[in-house]
Amino acid sequence: MKTIYFDNAATTKVDEEVIKTMQPYFTEKYANSSSKYATGVKAKEAVENARKIIADKMGAKPSEIIFTSGGTESNNLALKGLFFANYPTKNHIITTKIEHDSILNTCKWLEKQGAKITYLNVDKDGFVNLNDIKKAITEKTFLVSIIHGNNEIGTIQDIEKIGKICLSLKVLFHIDACQSFTKSLININKQNLDLVTLNSHKIHGPKGVGALYIREGTKIIPLLHGGGHQWGLRSGTENVPGIVGFAKAVELITSKDIDNMKKLRDMLINGLLEINGTKLNGPVENRLCNNINVSFGNVDGETLLNYLENCRIYASAGSACMSNTSEKSHVLQAIGLNEKEIESSLRISLSKHNTEKEIKFFLNKVKEIVKKLRSV
Amino acid sequence: MKTIYFDNAATTKVDEEVIKTMQPYFTEKYANSSSKYATGVKAKEAVENARKIIADKMGAKPSEIIFTSGGTESNNLALKGLFFANYPTKNHIITTKIEHDSILNTCKWLEKQGAKITYLNVDKDGFVNLNDIKKAITEKTFLVSIIHGNNEIGTIQDIEKIGKICLSLKVLFHIDACQSFTKSLININKQNLDLVTLNSHKIHGPKGVGALYIREGTKIIPLLHGGGHQWGLRSGTENVPGIVGFAKAVELITSKDIDNMKKLRDMLINGLLEINGTKLNGPVENRLCNNINVSFGNVDGETLLNYLENCRIYASAGSACMSNTSEKSHVLQAIGLNEKEIESSLRISLSKHNTEKEIKFFLNKVKEIVKKLRSV
Repeated sequence: MKTIYFDNAATTKVDEEVIKTMQPYFTEKYANSSSKYATGVKAKEAVENARKIIADKMGAKPSEIIFTSGGTESNNLALKGLFFANYPTKNHIITTKIEHDSILNTCKWLEKQGAKITYLNVDKDGFVNLNDIKKAITEKTFLVSIIHGNNEIGTIQDIEKIGKICLSLKVLFHIDACQSFTKSLININKQNLDLVTLNSHKIHGPKGVGALYIREGTKIIPLLHGGGHQWGLRSGTENVPGIVGFAKAVELITSKDIDNMKKLRDMLINGLLEINGTKLNGPVENRLCNNINVSFGNVDGETLLNYLENCRIYASAGSACMSNTSEKSHVLQAIGLNEKEIESSLRISLSKHNTEKEIKFFLNKVKEIVKKLRSV
Repeated sequence: MKTIYFDNAATTKVDEEVIKTMQPYFTEKYANSSSKYATGVKAKEAVENARKIIADKMGAKPSEIIFTSGGTESNNLALKGLFFANYPTKNHIITTKIEHDSILNTCKWLEKQGAKITYLNVDKDGFVNLNDIKKAITEKTFLVSIIHGNNEIGTIQDIEKIGKICLSLKVLFHIDACQSFTKSLININKQNLDLVTLNSHKIHGPKGVGALYIREGTKIIPLLHGGGHQWGLRSGTENVPGIVGFAKAVELITSKDIDNMKKLRDMLINGLLEINGTKLNGPVENRLCNNINVSFGNVDGETLLNYLENCRIYASAGSACMSNTSEKSHVLQAIGLNEKEIESSLRISLSKHNTEKEIKFFLNKVKEIVKKLRSV
């Protein structure tokens, strides 16, 4: 049995076709996209073409797509950029307790700069309450920032309804779509989105590239000042191969891939729930097509992961970003899990490359291991 | 005749060997370097190995190298990170009038946040006066930030002497070494450097990756908050292929390459100065090994560039980053050039791939073109 990679929420394998698309921009069409001569113009065209592909995917204009170095930079740009554009007239941001660290830790820093942050609770499945959002908005609020598809428990928020609230109460609406982009519908007009964080390496594109959709006319301060690239909103030589690869990755995703992941996800969830004492974390409906998160109760998650790794199965206990710390998942805490449930949790995140055979192999192994661990 | 690429200060062709080194990290060793399982650990090791290669090149410790998305981010991190760590106790930065836009525009923004900036004059060759630095330092000064090798006119500042001043007067010293790294000696102890901005795509590495050397113990606030990667100083999934490629590019550079560029540079300068009325911009000594910048006087630089492009020779009038604006070079203004001299300027920046044959071909062409343009 080859390796089974079940940690696609952490990062994904870059598609061969993506690499092929990037290749000429390393060694042939390597000019700086700001250069005025023919090869520079060609590089610029490649960037603009990529911008269009990504914009089209969400009903945006190409000029509303700003390329960044990834989801973390996009989230930082959204929050800090809007804060510095609005402060001190407005200083209030509404977010949730289940955001990615690049939102939560940016918020913590902004609090030191004078921001007020409301961290909304979520229900047992990770959903934010629409009334809570409405009630939290004050005349000092400039932004509601919500994670679209949660990276740990897969909860997909009803962004269309949240967008309506933001529109009617005249606050900006930002979603962190790092996990949901291409997996769940994102349409900036239908859902009234003002800013959307995207990244490439979660969808079989290269690492080190992401984007932030910023609705035309939004007042925002750049995070990276410099040569005035990208309409002055994000300076720095454009990463042409990375950008081109990101767009190619977007193009390659099909609805069949999504359907297949859903099928495998449900097979996996059903199989895992057959194990006595197992509990699904996150919702049954409105769940990322590739996310599975369960707690086994009286099994140590880390030990389970080690056993799985011995079978060449790679999964995780939660966010890869969190693995830099020894903190317990703030997401699992927010949905009310007790310590035992958190410590026995397992996240599996699929990609289009996973197969039914892998699911079956995994289910057999995990059943064996849990039985063994419980018998000790 | 093939294309002649003379714009290596804008960006460079990625080395084939760099690409080969990056390749496995796209499709095989693609795990997130924060993941705990074996392939994640392997990715982490690759990043740490790259950190060591880059640290060694400047006598630093690996833990003092922070990977970023490029020179612009590194410069922003250095200035903003130190400002927010020092303000309001200290608020004064000393820099020069010939910095890259990522320093100057960051300074302009910091002024709005309460920073005081001293923009030092330079002499006719682009050198900053050491006494001017000494005199500018006050008890509110926390930083001297100087471009090591100027991107337009090639001036290499005496950073060892500046470093001594900073050390004795207890202010931090940052250099922007985007153009000088691997081309001119950088040693953080010998030169008392506290922060050094590096990037990859100027030295035949990939775009979208750079680094900031930060001396151990330096109080600095991250620019990108998030999952706590890189000792909390720069969050965001590490761009493993980019980082590995950057380090490989550093390894590939030899002193022979530098010597060869110097030889070609001097051949080019001497050949250009044979043209009546031509003036060298920047110094004869202490000049980047790959930089040539001349003014022709009564020739329009843009027209000249177009003619050169017709001969498939790619050069520039100045910084590629500046080409987003129609402003005249602030560097050429700072060294006292008049409008005519600025408008007739040409920057040629070499790489290790340029040849004597190319220099000769170029010199013949440029002589012809200048003669033609002057006769009109």
